[in-house]
Amino acid sequence: MVRFTVLGCGRIGRMHAANLARHPGVELVSVFDIMDEAANATAQALGVRRAASTAEALSDPKVDAVLIATPTATHVPLIIEAARAGKAILCEKPIDLDIERVLQCRDEIAGFDPIVMIGFNRRFDPTFAALRRRVEAGEIGRVEQVVISSRDPAPPPLSYIRGSGGLFHDMMIHDFDMARSLVGDIVEVSALGAVLVDPGIGEAGDIDAAMVTLRAASGALVHINNSRRCAYGYDQRLEVFGEKGMLLAGNQRETTVEAHLADRTACRDPILHFFIQRYTDAYAAEISHFVTAVETHTRPTPGFSDGLEALRLADAAATSHSTGRSVRLDQVAGEALDSMMR
Amino acid sequence: MVRFTVLGCGRIGRMHAANLARHPGVELVSVFDIMDEAANATAQALGVRRAASTAEALSDPKVDAVLIATPTATHVPLIIEAARAGKAILCEKPIDLDIERVLQCRDEIAGFDPIVMIGFNRRFDPTFAALRRRVEAGEIGRVEQVVISSRDPAPPPLSYIRGSGGLFHDMMIHDFDMARSLVGDIVEVSALGAVLVDPGIGEAGDIDAAMVTLRAASGALVHINNSRRCAYGYDQRLEVFGEKGMLLAGNQRETTVEAHLADRTACRDPILHFFIQRYTDAYAAEISHFVTAVETHTRPTPGFSDGLEALRLADAAATSHSTGRSVRLDQVAGEALDSMMR
Amino acid sequence: MVRFTVLGCGRIGRMHAANLARHPGVELVSVFDIMDEAANATAQALGVRRAASTAEALSDPKVDAVLIATPTATHVPLIIEAARAGKAILCEKPIDLDIERVLQCRDEIAGFDPIVMIGFNRRFDPTFAALRRRVEAGEIGRVEQVVISSRDPAPPPLSYIRGSGGLFHDMMIHDFDMARSLVGDIVEVSALGAVLVDPGIGEAGDIDAAMVTLRAASGALVHINNSRRCAYGYDQRLEVFGEKGMLLAGNQRETTVEAHLADRTACRDPILHFFIQRYTDAYAAEISHFVTAVETHTRPTPGFSDGLEALRLADAAATSHSTGRSVRLDQVAGEALDSMMR
Amino acid sequence: MVRFTVLGCGRIGRMHAANLARHPGVELVSVFDIMDEAANATAQALGVRRAASTAEALSDPKVDAVLIATPTATHVPLIIEAARAGKAILCEKPIDLDIERVLQCRDEIAGFDPIVMIGFNRRFDPTFAALRRRVEAGEIGRVEQVVISSRDPAPPPLSYIRGSGGLFHDMMIHDFDMARSLVGDIVEVSALGAVLVDPGIGEAGDIDAAMVTLRAASGALVHINNSRRCAYGYDQRLEVFGEKGMLLAGNQRETTVEAHLADRTACRDPILHFFIQRYTDAYAAEISHFVTAVETHTRPTPGFSDGLEALRLADAAATSHSTGRSVRLDQVAGEALDSMMR
Repeated sequence: MVRFTVLGCGRIGRMHAANLARHPGVELVSVFDIMDEAANATAQALGVRRAASTAEALSDPKVDAVLIATPTATHVPLIIEAARAGKAILCEKPIDLDIERVLQCRDEIAGFDPIVMIGFNRRFDPTFAALRRRVEAGEIGRVEQVVISSRDPAPPPLSYIRGSGGLFHDMMIHDFDMARSLVGDIVEVSALGAVLVDPGIGEAGDIDAAMVTLRAASGALVHINNSRRCAYGYDQRLEVFGEKGMLLAGNQRETTVEAHLADRTACRDPILHFFIQRYTDAYAAEISHFVTAVETHTRPTPGFSDGLEALRLADAAATSHSTGRSVRLDQVAGEALDSMMR
Repeated sequence: MVRFTVLGCGRIGRMHAANLARHPGVELVSVFDIMDEAANATAQALGVRRAASTAEALSDPKVDAVLIATPTATHVPLIIEAARAGKAILCEKPIDLDIERVLQCRDEIAGFDPIVMIGFNRRFDPTFAALRRRVEAGEIGRVEQVVISSRDPAPPPLSYIRGSGGLFHDMMIHDFDMARSLVGDIVEVSALGAVLVDPGIGEAGDIDAAMVTLRAASGALVHINNSRRCAYGYDQRLEVFGEKGMLLAGNQRETTVEAHLADRTACRDPILHFFIQRYTDAYAAEISHFVTAVETHTRPTPGFSDGLEALRLADAAATSHSTGRSVRLDQVAGEALDSMMR
Repeated sequence: MVRFTVLGCGRIGRMHAANLARHPGVELVSVFDIMDEAANATAQALGVRRAASTAEALSDPKVDAVLIATPTATHVPLIIEAARAGKAILCEKPIDLDIERVLQCRDEIAGFDPIVMIGFNRRFDPTFAALRRRVEAGEIGRVEQVVISSRDPAPPPLSYIRGSGGLFHDMMIHDFDMARSLVGDIVEVSALGAVLVDPGIGEAGDIDAAMVTLRAASGALVHINNSRRCAYGYDQRLEVFGEKGMLLAGNQRETTVEAHLADRTACRDPILHFFIQRYTDAYAAEISHFVTAVETHTRPTPGFSDGLEALRLADAAATSHSTGRSVRLDQVAGEALDSMMR
Repeated sequence: MVRFTVLGCGRIGRMHAANLARHPGVELVSVFDIMDEAANATAQALGVRRAASTAEALSDPKVDAVLIATPTATHVPLIIEAARAGKAILCEKPIDLDIERVLQCRDEIAGFDPIVMIGFNRRFDPTFAALRRRVEAGEIGRVEQVVISSRDPAPPPLSYIRGSGGLFHDMMIHDFDMARSLVGDIVEVSALGAVLVDPGIGEAGDIDAAMVTLRAASGALVHINNSRRCAYGYDQRLEVFGEKGMLLAGNQRETTVEAHLADRTACRDPILHFFIQRYTDAYAAEISHFVTAVETHTRPTPGFSDGLEALRLADAAATSHSTGRSVRLDQVAGEALDSMMR
């Protein structure tokens, strides 16, 4: 039985708290949010204690593990505090928007050697996980190319956009991690972004559509397309091309009903609308993976370094987009990278 | 909060008990099985009381409702006992194999006017339910024809076959109910059965494959095909043809992965293996529907009469199969029907 | 080079004539139709001679083979005349509506031992033919069940219906032949028909929808559904269930375009509208098969006896529909059959 | 009736000659190839005259139009010669590998104002053409992104690779034209290439896999992926994302058969193997478009300038690949472009 506190009771935090509450190997001890209302509502709904502060939650000896779902800027201090308190840590992505702070965080927590997992939920999606297992089992031989389509149904509010770190850091970071999980280390990044959906996003200094190409150390090429708008829902697809064939992961729907009508046939349902619906099973499996790691004292995956690497790719994509050059990750030292990026 | 006892802790009973235990509107009070081991295991796993007898379980004033998942032959006496005790009743299909006993049961419980629901779980499958709602909403106009494909992955043991009442009563009864839910009352049944899978099933006096045609009072025609073997899994499909088009419900798979290889393309996963996997959501939705009916004192559907009508269709199919004639349901009185059948 | 005359320049005859004209192994010598306009138009379009009469066309020593696409009632005399003239014969289905006349025809031509092929075009559809080859190669083991869906986009004029011989003889006869091509001889037929589309068809003494079950000598069961109306086009599908799996032949579309929109996804084109479009390749392959048979002096398939057997099944279905009994084909002698049917 | 000569009797030339020979609006007058055997075989097979030289073929007053399917290096002189002779010109892609020569060719033929069409056959594929018409009709609103997957089944011989001009000029040039046909003028190109299939291709100075991103003047982004190997056949797919939805063009197969087996379901045929099979209808429609243009004295599309623009994109991609920069097409003047490229 792993005992948890959940920090952050926004949409994602509440979902995680509910998943923890119904997990048979978990005891949810407390929840915290700086907003009284959110914290109280979550605590009451799940019948758990509301912690008075993150410090109190993290110093509780009855707590083994913390799930961090607070705003991004607080991730690093909370990770450090939790590591000091000896807690296992499951932190929502991204670790931080500033790679310098992530590197410092890494150094500060190194001595405590905490169990840390970063919430790249898509790795745990049953379809993507099955596809990856089949790739690893050699069904299509060596991986040569990957196409990742990842499109949100509608843009978030501009207020969110402004604090998001930009499309590459907020949205495509999931796809960078997915790419790494399929082809390993990336050595080159080439990115083109555009404002195609909402001029306001452009005025806020961000883009709302992008196409990125990655080159892996293995030689494989990866394409990622993102858009902040997708009329037909939350488009989440994957194509992995190997020497022996292609494995494809398609979108998902609530039912298998097909309509065959006079002017169109084989019409399926809309696809699942957004991440809460699409990745329901993935979020639950993510929790289970982390709980198992805590129970067995093993390293969960994706770990801190995966969070760091995804951030480096987001940085590289942002640089490529703004400079019109492809960015070589293998030629940049840590410091050089930092100065070169943002 | 509806308080339940579960009678029968076999595979189906355990599944229902677990669904009840996790339903937020339900308190599972007790479980019973004539086999100590099954009853104890279920009681312990769910942390509920093991009732000493059905009588004790049903006389418990803390119990509002009973889920009956015992062997078919005990359904009628347990329904009567539960009705007398004033409990709401959710009984697994079929009510009984003998229509005479079902009619007597109906008469005996009439005075108590109990809430009774029969466990035709497929009505609650999200895909089939969505298809039916779209049919009812008029998307394809008047229903003209229906094709129901319903095939088990492998035959049950011969010991099960011998007590099952035969393919029409044990297996196709679900499809008869599905047909009724789509086209209403049936007036004519024509059935051809065969032994194609296992000669032992034939020696046991049963068939293992059948094709049946129904004619509805509305005029619609319905085809049902059943087989006790299906190499690719638990085939559960539906096609509904109307004047404006066709709605189709396809099989379901664990993932959306497709393999494109040198000698074959677009290959999907095996379909979900059997009813526990395929109808997970349906069983949960069935419980919810019943709980709502109990809470709101409304009639759940499918009710006792639906169980009776499905049995009449199974009887008619068996008669048609053995006589080589189509059987007209609208021309037979209650008594005539009884003597004519079995 | 096989030299042809084409008798009948209606829709089907013109199509065959055009296919013959472009076949590299064929010389189209002449065409005939009792309607001057049709005959002239076809002769001019293809640059061939217009025969003055069937007798003239069939007595032409420069003609090796005849394609008969005249009204059904003329098939038997033309087959006999062609056989006497020593021509190879490709005759549109059905041979005749009256099995007695077909049996007489068989006897009359027996002495000439002509090459005769009946135009069950669907056997030559590349999809159905590939499916059948895979079944024959054992991919799914022994065939246990077959489901044939065959639905016309819209009913023909009532004038056509009145002379058609009825749905079983005019429309389902194709499916009877398809069933035989997949499972071999049929021993039992059970049919339910209905008037669901146009009451005028009922007033004309015919039905416009039917569901039929066949039992093969092999034990296999076959379901056929027909409708004279299908809102989404010319529905032509096949499912063959064997001990090792199922092979399915789906509908066909002009393009592979899919639309993914806000309220529906993966929408495909309408299916190919009617037989001329759907079976374009089949009609061409049918000609090729016949030409090869003529060139190599081998028996083409489907032959005269296949036309006879399909007619026997149509008769049996009509009898079953009108009597409410299943009809056993293996228990009826030739004469008995004739009196029993119609 | 348009009278043609065909120059070049290799695989593509023979196919075009056969298509011309069977086109009802075409008279194929002569064919030429520098190889006697190829020329004779084609001339005999189609029953046409073998021209003694290109000069003779092009000076023939009985010839209205020329189809040029000779090696790329001869395209420019033959176009010029044909223009001088007043013939309409249908030239296989690419016009030339050297943009300077293409610009000179343009200037030299300008005075003759010939009808010129470049053989980007994919524009005439019924599926791609239907998709484009639907995009133009506004079904998905403004086009925001496009994903083009275009993968050959197997690499050509190294001898071919060496003279091909490289993957961007030989293979992806089709996709550049497809991109332009969907989103109009391109302003920026970013390319990553790799040697993933055959090291020999790398030693020959070429790549065998590439991912390219284009930015259109409209703002739209386009991704193209190419590979010289595709285990499952000739992968030719298109996804067009607009503000209202997505239109997708899938691969094509010979039949619609699906296999449902114990370990995999819904398996389709291999996709059509290579361009001759996949684009049969496209090549025929291309001829028809050109013939109509000649008959009606209208400009065929794609024209000379489309050939030029596709070449500019191939040049830009090659530059981007070798420099690691994205190449801006709108900032380079004609001369600058030439010096900057290659």
